[in-house]
Amino acid sequence: MVILQLSLPTPVNPQTNGAITGLTSTCQKRLSKFHSTLPPRLLITNSHESQYPFSLFHPANEGVAAIVFGDGSESRLYPLTKRRSAGAIPIAANYRLVDAVVSNCINSNINKIYALTQCNSASLNSHLSKAYSGLGLGKEGLVEVIAAYQSTEYEGWFQGAADAVRRCLWVMEEYPVSEFLILPGHHLYKMDYQKIIEAHRNSKADITIAALGASRDQDPGFGFLTVNSENQVLEFRLKSESKPISFVSEETSRKCNDIANCYSSMGIYLINKDTIVKLLREHFPKANDFASEVIPGAISIGMKVQGFIFNEYWEDMRSIEAFYQTNMESTKKANMAFNFFDIESPMYTLPRCLPSTLITDAVITDSVIGGGCILNRCKIKGTVVGMRAKIREGAVIEDSVIMGSDVYQMEDIQCGMNKNGIDIPIGIGEDTQIRKAIVDKNARIGRNVLIINKDNVQEGNNEANGFIISGGIVVVLRSAVVPDGTIV
Amino acid sequence: MVILQLSLPTPVNPQTNGAITGLTSTCQKRLSKFHSTLPPRLLITNSHESQYPFSLFHPANEGVAAIVFGDGSESRLYPLTKRRSAGAIPIAANYRLVDAVVSNCINSNINKIYALTQCNSASLNSHLSKAYSGLGLGKEGLVEVIAAYQSTEYEGWFQGAADAVRRCLWVMEEYPVSEFLILPGHHLYKMDYQKIIEAHRNSKADITIAALGASRDQDPGFGFLTVNSENQVLEFRLKSESKPISFVSEETSRKCNDIANCYSSMGIYLINKDTIVKLLREHFPKANDFASEVIPGAISIGMKVQGFIFNEYWEDMRSIEAFYQTNMESTKKANMAFNFFDIESPMYTLPRCLPSTLITDAVITDSVIGGGCILNRCKIKGTVVGMRAKIREGAVIEDSVIMGSDVYQMEDIQCGMNKNGIDIPIGIGEDTQIRKAIVDKNARIGRNVLIINKDNVQEGNNEANGFIISGGIVVVLRSAVVPDGTIV
Amino acid sequence: MVILQLSLPTPVNPQTNGAITGLTSTCQKRLSKFHSTLPPRLLITNSHESQYPFSLFHPANEGVAAIVFGDGSESRLYPLTKRRSAGAIPIAANYRLVDAVVSNCINSNINKIYALTQCNSASLNSHLSKAYSGLGLGKEGLVEVIAAYQSTEYEGWFQGAADAVRRCLWVMEEYPVSEFLILPGHHLYKMDYQKIIEAHRNSKADITIAALGASRDQDPGFGFLTVNSENQVLEFRLKSESKPISFVSEETSRKCNDIANCYSSMGIYLINKDTIVKLLREHFPKANDFASEVIPGAISIGMKVQGFIFNEYWEDMRSIEAFYQTNMESTKKANMAFNFFDIESPMYTLPRCLPSTLITDAVITDSVIGGGCILNRCKIKGTVVGMRAKIREGAVIEDSVIMGSDVYQMEDIQCGMNKNGIDIPIGIGEDTQIRKAIVDKNARIGRNVLIINKDNVQEGNNEANGFIISGGIVVVLRSAVVPDGTIV
Amino acid sequence: MVILQLSLPTPVNPQTNGAITGLTSTCQKRLSKFHSTLPPRLLITNSHESQYPFSLFHPANEGVAAIVFGDGSESRLYPLTKRRSAGAIPIAANYRLVDAVVSNCINSNINKIYALTQCNSASLNSHLSKAYSGLGLGKEGLVEVIAAYQSTEYEGWFQGAADAVRRCLWVMEEYPVSEFLILPGHHLYKMDYQKIIEAHRNSKADITIAALGASRDQDPGFGFLTVNSENQVLEFRLKSESKPISFVSEETSRKCNDIANCYSSMGIYLINKDTIVKLLREHFPKANDFASEVIPGAISIGMKVQGFIFNEYWEDMRSIEAFYQTNMESTKKANMAFNFFDIESPMYTLPRCLPSTLITDAVITDSVIGGGCILNRCKIKGTVVGMRAKIREGAVIEDSVIMGSDVYQMEDIQCGMNKNGIDIPIGIGEDTQIRKAIVDKNARIGRNVLIINKDNVQEGNNEANGFIISGGIVVVLRSAVVPDGTIV
Repeated sequence: MVILQLSLPTPVNPQTNGAITGLTSTCQKRLSKFHSTLPPRLLITNSHESQYPFSLFHPANEGVAAIVFGDGSESRLYPLTKRRSAGAIPIAANYRLVDAVVSNCINSNINKIYALTQCNSASLNSHLSKAYSGLGLGKEGLVEVIAAYQSTEYEGWFQGAADAVRRCLWVMEEYPVSEFLILPGHHLYKMDYQKIIEAHRNSKADITIAALGASRDQDPGFGFLTVNSENQVLEFRLKSESKPISFVSEETSRKCNDIANCYSSMGIYLINKDTIVKLLREHFPKANDFASEVIPGAISIGMKVQGFIFNEYWEDMRSIEAFYQTNMESTKKANMAFNFFDIESPMYTLPRCLPSTLITDAVITDSVIGGGCILNRCKIKGTVVGMRAKIREGAVIEDSVIMGSDVYQMEDIQCGMNKNGIDIPIGIGEDTQIRKAIVDKNARIGRNVLIINKDNVQEGNNEANGFIISGGIVVVLRSAVVPDGTIV
Repeated sequence: MVILQLSLPTPVNPQTNGAITGLTSTCQKRLSKFHSTLPPRLLITNSHESQYPFSLFHPANEGVAAIVFGDGSESRLYPLTKRRSAGAIPIAANYRLVDAVVSNCINSNINKIYALTQCNSASLNSHLSKAYSGLGLGKEGLVEVIAAYQSTEYEGWFQGAADAVRRCLWVMEEYPVSEFLILPGHHLYKMDYQKIIEAHRNSKADITIAALGASRDQDPGFGFLTVNSENQVLEFRLKSESKPISFVSEETSRKCNDIANCYSSMGIYLINKDTIVKLLREHFPKANDFASEVIPGAISIGMKVQGFIFNEYWEDMRSIEAFYQTNMESTKKANMAFNFFDIESPMYTLPRCLPSTLITDAVITDSVIGGGCILNRCKIKGTVVGMRAKIREGAVIEDSVIMGSDVYQMEDIQCGMNKNGIDIPIGIGEDTQIRKAIVDKNARIGRNVLIINKDNVQEGNNEANGFIISGGIVVVLRSAVVPDGTIV
Repeated sequence: MVILQLSLPTPVNPQTNGAITGLTSTCQKRLSKFHSTLPPRLLITNSHESQYPFSLFHPANEGVAAIVFGDGSESRLYPLTKRRSAGAIPIAANYRLVDAVVSNCINSNINKIYALTQCNSASLNSHLSKAYSGLGLGKEGLVEVIAAYQSTEYEGWFQGAADAVRRCLWVMEEYPVSEFLILPGHHLYKMDYQKIIEAHRNSKADITIAALGASRDQDPGFGFLTVNSENQVLEFRLKSESKPISFVSEETSRKCNDIANCYSSMGIYLINKDTIVKLLREHFPKANDFASEVIPGAISIGMKVQGFIFNEYWEDMRSIEAFYQTNMESTKKANMAFNFFDIESPMYTLPRCLPSTLITDAVITDSVIGGGCILNRCKIKGTVVGMRAKIREGAVIEDSVIMGSDVYQMEDIQCGMNKNGIDIPIGIGEDTQIRKAIVDKNARIGRNVLIINKDNVQEGNNEANGFIISGGIVVVLRSAVVPDGTIV
Repeated sequence: MVILQLSLPTPVNPQTNGAITGLTSTCQKRLSKFHSTLPPRLLITNSHESQYPFSLFHPANEGVAAIVFGDGSESRLYPLTKRRSAGAIPIAANYRLVDAVVSNCINSNINKIYALTQCNSASLNSHLSKAYSGLGLGKEGLVEVIAAYQSTEYEGWFQGAADAVRRCLWVMEEYPVSEFLILPGHHLYKMDYQKIIEAHRNSKADITIAALGASRDQDPGFGFLTVNSENQVLEFRLKSESKPISFVSEETSRKCNDIANCYSSMGIYLINKDTIVKLLREHFPKANDFASEVIPGAISIGMKVQGFIFNEYWEDMRSIEAFYQTNMESTKKANMAFNFFDIESPMYTLPRCLPSTLITDAVITDSVIGGGCILNRCKIKGTVVGMRAKIREGAVIEDSVIMGSDVYQMEDIQCGMNKNGIDIPIGIGEDTQIRKAIVDKNARIGRNVLIINKDNVQEGNNEANGFIISGGIVVVLRSAVVPDGTIV
C-alpha cells in the first residue's frame, strides 16, 4: 500500500527529460503572465464542471489552490485507520482530523482545495464531499476530491505525493492559479496561510517550506532544513540514523550543526505553478516523493527555496499515544493547546441535525460531549464523548475517548450476541468501567466490563477479541463486540 | 395585529357569491379529474420556479400539500414572542417549535409545504428557508414560505387563516394537489398524517378535522365537534362562555352533551382542493377564519365533514407554563411525553456546525444539553441548556430553560454595562443561581445574581428590567442585561 | 399599497427625539470602534441563526452589508407586476431583474445582503431564497429576505424605504457591519461597489450617494444633487415641476444651475451604521423615505454627504417601453449595452436543471434563447425566448419578448378552452404571428393569432381579454388565454 | 486497466469456502428479518455519516439500494474516454451519460445509490457528487461515490464488478436494504425499476436479471439467458464465438435455440442482500465478474434466478457510431427514441447557472442547443450544440456533435498557437465547415477548417493532430487545437 505521506525516503531521480513544453504549457505560461497583471477575478473552471461557471479569487490569496493529502500516518495510527484514512479519524467529538487543515484554508480565504486520496478513502471522500458545503463559492465546492484512478496512461496507484500531484496536474492546472499549497491532511494546528503566501511572494521564491524549530518533536519523514538570515534554505536533508542524506545547495556547504538555524519541515510546500509543472514533468518526471526527491532536487538545480518558520502548536498524530494526548488536552480548558472554540479561526465540519444530549443523573467533569448523546446515571471524567454515544447506568468512564456511533438503534434491533445469547447494543453497558482507553465508533461494550489495562500492558494485539493496546492505551476497534464481564 | 390562529370567534358570513367559475377553475377541475386516474408523477411547478422543473409525489400521500401557519398563541407566549413567531421559539435546546409539525410532514412523506407567516416572521422565515434543506425533492424545497404581502387587489394584511389561504390560493392551486392539509405550526405532537389522509379518502369526505377527546385540556379557540359512529361530524360549535355558538348540520340536532362523542378540534383540517376553492371563493368569500366561519359554514351547506380522533400526546403551548412544563419533561427520560430521540419519526431542524460541548468540573443531572456549550465548574439540574450557552464558575441552575446564544463572543468584546461600569458578557455569570426560570437567548446575566422568584410572585411585568413573571416562572427577555448581584 | 421605492416626495420631518442611547446602542458603538482596529474576521450572527456560527468578511468590503429593496416601479411596469415585484420580472430569458443588483454585490465581494420586500413578494422571496445558494459563506446564505411583518410595536406595513430599514434595524444591527449599502433592486447596471466603498472611506463621509450625470435620462424620484470639486454634496433637491423642493446645506446656497456639477441620484446610498441608526432613530424617527426626508435632513443637520459619480450603463426600467428596449438590446451582440456574458462580472441566478433547447427546422436570427425550449418549424427574429417556451409550427415571432413557462405540460392536460371547445396549450400556437409584443409567462396563445398591434394603438387596456398596450407594445398577461384567430 | 464492466468473460471459480457467518452476518440476518415485518422507515446510516442521521424509505422500493458502475465501454468509446469514464461523456448537450441511469433511480423512488468508480474517475466522481443535490433525502445524498481505494487487506484495484461489490460490501451492508440493484452506468434507457422489484418479490427469486429480446442488438458481454414460461432462467451463457460457455441449471438442458425464450442480459441484476453476501463471500469468494462467474455460479448451485424482459428503447453506446447515432436522434422530434423532455420520467443532472444562448443571424434547423452558447451568423443543421459553445461567423455545422466548453474565455486570453503565431480560441472558427463529426469539449478549431472526412476514411488514428476517425465519424479530441485552413 502506497501512502501519500510526502515522506518516503527514497533516492532522488534528478532526471531532466526532454521538452514537453508543447501548446499546453505555453498556454499556461501566457495565462499566468496575464494573471499577474490583471484584476483578481478570472474566468475558468476546468474539466470539473461546476454549477456556476465562474470562480472568484479574493485578493489576499489570489491564485492559490491547496492540495491536501488525505493519507498519512496510516500504520502508526492503526487500528484507528483500519477502515479509514488518517484524515477521517474522529477527534474532539464533533470533528474529523482533516477538518483542521481544511478549516485553516477556509480561514485563510483559500477557496479552492483539491484533496488527493487513495488509502481507505471511502469515508474520507464521503466526508469531504459533504462537509463545508455552502462554504465555497458556487456549488463547485470548496473541496474537489480526486480519488486515485486508473487510466490508459497510468494503470498503477499513486506512487507517492509527488506522483499523485503529477498525475492530477491536468485537472488542477486548468484552473488559473499562480501557486499550489501542498498540505498533509492529518496534522492538527492553526496557521494563517496568508502569511506564508505573503512571505513567499515577497521573497520571490520558487518554493517555500513551512518548518518547525528543530528542537521540537517532529515527524522525521519530512526532513530537515537549514536557513540563512533571509530564511533561504541552504541545506535540506532527510534524517537517516545510519547514513544521513544531505542535499547541499551550491551556495553553501554548512552542516545543520548550527542548531539555531536548523528546522524540521512540516511537509507544507508553497510552490509556484510553473515551478511545480517543470519539476514534476521536466526535471524529475520519475520522482514520487517531495521530501526525498523533488525538494532536494529543486535545491540542487539552483531553485530558490525559502523556509517559513512556524512557532505555534503543531501536532502530527504520529502515534496512538499522541492522538490520545491531543484528545485529552481538548477536555481541559485551562491548557487547551488547540482551541476548538476559537471564534477567530473556527473549525468547520459537516453540519449535523442531531438531538440535544440528554443527561440523566450523571456527574460529568472535564469532558467534551458531542451532540445527540444519551448519558444515563453514569460518571464521566476527563473524557471525549463522541456523537450519539450511549452510556448506560452505573458506567464510569475516565480519561478516555469514546467515539460514539454513526447510528441510532432501536433497542429491539440489538445486534451482537454474547456467549449467553444476550444481545449487546451499541454503546457502553451498565456498570462498566473504562479508564485510559479509546473506544472506536459503533463498539458494543457489554455490562460489568472492565477496560482498565489491568496488567499494565504497553503493547499488545488482541484484535481477534476486538482490541489492541498501544503505548499503554487500550484501543477498542470499530464495531467490536465486548461481552459482559470482560476484563482487559 | 391579526394572528393567523385559525380560531378567531367572529360571526359566520355564509355568503354565496356568484359563479367565478371561469377558465381557471374549469381547468382545475379537469386537472384534478385527470389526476385521480393517472400515475402519481406530475409535471408542474408554479410561479415559484424551482431548480428542478419537476416534482415527485409518493404514492402514500400523493397530491397532499401542507399549509402550515407560523403564527398562533403569540400573546399567550409573550415575551418569548416579542421578536419572533410562536413557531420560532426554541425548544428542547436544538429545535424550534415549528420543527415538530414540519417533521411530522417529512415523516408522513408530505414533501410540499407552504408556510404562511405574518407576525414577527423574520426569524421564522429565515429558519424555514434554511432548515430541512436537502430533505425535499429538488431545491424547490420542502418548505415554500409565503410571507404576508401587499398587492394591488389586497392592500391589507392577512385577516385570518382562511383569508390567508384565499389570498395565497393562486400560488398553491397551480400545483397538482388533490387535498390541502392545514396545520397550526406551534403545536407539539407526533402524528402520521398518512392515517388522516387514508381515513379522509376512504370516507370520501370533503373535510376531515383532527380532534382530541374533549375531556383533555384543549385550545378552545379551535372549537368542538360531535361525531356519529362513522366519525361524521354532526355538530360543530365554538365554546363561548356567555352564548355558545352552535352550528348544527341538517342531519341531526343532537347537542354535544353526549360526552363520549364530543371532541375538541386540533385546528388541523384536511380539505379537498376543489372544496377549499369553492368554500373560500364562492360560498364564503369574506370569511376570515376556519373555526368560526368556514368549517361551520361548510357543514351548514351540507358538505361531508368527518372527524379524525387522535389520542396521543398533543401540547398546544397555550401558556408560558405549558411551554415550561414541556421543556421540563424533555429532561426526564422516564416519562418523556414527546420523544425527541425517536428514530422512527425523528425531529428535523437546521443542521449545524457547532463545537462539542465542553464541560469542566461540572455536575449535571437530568438535563438536556445543546451543542457548543461551555459549562465551567457549575451545577445544572433538571435544565434545558440551549446551544452555545456559557455558564460560568459557581453557577447553579435548577429546573430552568437556558436558551443559549446565537453568537460566540470574544471575551474582549463584552457588551452591556452594569451600574458599576463592568461589562456583562452573554451567558450566566459566576456564582449566580437560577431556579424555575426561562432565560431567553443572548441574555447577559451578571455575577451573584439570584433568579429564584424570591417573593413567589405569580404574575408580574418588569420588562424594563429585563424580565417578567408568568405562572410563577421568571422569564428573562432576549438580550436582556441583568446586573451583578440582582435578586429576583 | 406602499411601495418601498426610496422616492416618495413627502415633506421632511426633521424631528430630533430624545436619547434612545441605552445599552444597546452603547454596545454597538463600542463594537464598531473595536471593529475598525481589529482583524477582519468577526464572530457574530444575529437572531437569524445560521448553520455555521461564524461569518467571514473579506478585506475589500469588510463590514459592508447591502440592503436591497425588491419593490419599485410597480405601477409603471404594470401588468408585468400584477403578481410579482419589479425585481422578480424575468429578463433576458434566464434572469430576473433583481439578479443584476445581487450579482453586483457578489462580484464586489459583498456577502451579506438583506432583501426587504413587501409588494407581491411571493415569487421574489422564493427566488431570493433559492438562487445564489452555495455562493455565500455558510448556509446562512448570501441573501436574507426580510418580508414585511406585523409586530406588537408596529402593526402596519413598511411605510417607505426608510421606515422599512428602521423596522428591520434590530435584525441587521447585530451583525458587525460598519456601513450599509442601500440599493434599489429593480435597476439594471454593473457597478463595482468596492469603488464607492473606497471613495466613501477615503472622504470620511457619513453618507455617499451614487449619481448619474443629470443630462441622462433618470428616475426623477430619487432627486438631484450638486457637488463641489471634492464631490461633496452641496445641495440636494427633489425635482417637482410646480414647486421644486430644495434642501441647501449650510455650506452653500448655490443652485443646481451649474449643469456640470449637477447629478441625478441613483437611489444608492452608502451610510455608516452609526449614522443610519442615529438618523432613523434619533433625528428623523418618523421619516419614511430616504430621498425626500432622510437625505435632505442629514444635509440640513450638517452631516458629510458625498457624491459618487457613475458614468456607465444604467437602466431603471421606468416603463414598459424601457423594459422592452432593454430586452431588445440583449439580442444584439454588436451594441449590447449590458453584457450578460461578461466573464469578469458574471450574472448569477437560480441554477436550473433544464433539458437542452430543441430546434426543429426553425430560422432564428438575432435572438436570445433560454433553456428547455421547444421551437418547431418557426421563424424567430430579434426576440428574447424565455425558458421552456414552446413555439409551434408556422409561428413567426419578431422583435418580441416571449417569457416562456414555469411548467412543462403533458399535451393531454391542455387547459384553457376557446370558443370552439378546443383546448389551448401553453405556448405560441401554429401559424401565429407576433410582432413587438411582450408575452408574459404561461400564456396560452392559440392558432392563427395575430399580435401585431394592427391599429397602432399607443396606450390601451384590454385586461379582460388578456392584454394591454403600453407605448405601442402589446403586453399579453401572465397565464392569459388568447383564442385561435384573435387579432390584436 | 481493469474496467468494471460486469462482463469479463473469464472462467468461473465456483469455490465454496467455509462459513464466515460470524457475528456480523448473523446480525444482518436478524436485521433483514426484522425489516420484512416492520414499517418502512428505518434508522440507520453507516460509516458514511450524514447530516441527518436518519433515512427514509418509500414503500414502493423499500429497502432497495442501487449500485451503479461508472466504468464500461471505455475502450470502445475512445477517445471520448481518454480523460473520463464512459458515464461522464456529455450527451444531448446538457447531460452526461450516467444521468440516464441515475434519473431512472430517482424516478423509481430509489434514493440510495452507490456509485463504484475506478477508471478515469475524476470528472465522473465530481459530477456525481454535485449533481442531483437536494434531490435525495438528507444531505447524505442520493449518490454515495465509492472510488477504488487501497487498504491493508487489498492493495490492488477492483478486479471486476463482482470484486468491487465484494470490497465495498462493508460500507453498503450496514444500510438496512433488502435487495441491491446492480446497474451499468453507461446505458441509455428509461426503466421503472419498481416493476422489476415487484416482479422479483412476487417470484421470490434470489436474483432477477433484466434482459432484452435476443433479436435486438445487444452487448454480448453480459451474456444470454433462456427462460421458461414463468420467466425463470433455465440457462445462462456467455456468447463466445469459438467455444460457447454454457451453464445449465439442473432443471433443464434445453439449448437457447428456442429463439422465442432466449434473451440477452442487460447487465442489470436485482439481488437479495443475503444472497449477494453469500455469493461473494462464501460461494465464490474469488469471482471477479458477474456475467461470467457469479450469475452462472448461482444457477449452478440451485439459486432461483428470474428474467425480467424489457422491450423498450435501450442503447449501450458500444461504439463511437452508436454514440453518434443516439445524439443525432435527439435532434429529431418526430422519431426521438429517447425523450429528454419526458415530463413523467425527467432527466436530472447538475443544475447550472448559464447565460441564455445568444443567436445572431443564424439559421438553425433540427438541432439541440445547450445553455450559454454564442452562435454568430452561422448555419447549424442536425447538430447537438453543447453548453457554452461558441460558433463564429460563416461557420456551417451539419450532422455533428459539438460538445461545447467548460469555460468562458476572455478573448484576450486566447490560447493555442497555430503555425502563423495566431491564437486560436476555444470554439469553431470563422467560415469553418464541419460535417458528421464529434468535437469534444474545449477544442479550438481555427478558421476555414474543413472537417468533412474528405477522403471518406472509415477508421484512422491521427491523435497527434488532434483527431481520430471511427466508423467514418471524425472525432476531434478534448482540448485539441486545429489550425486555420486544416482539411480533414
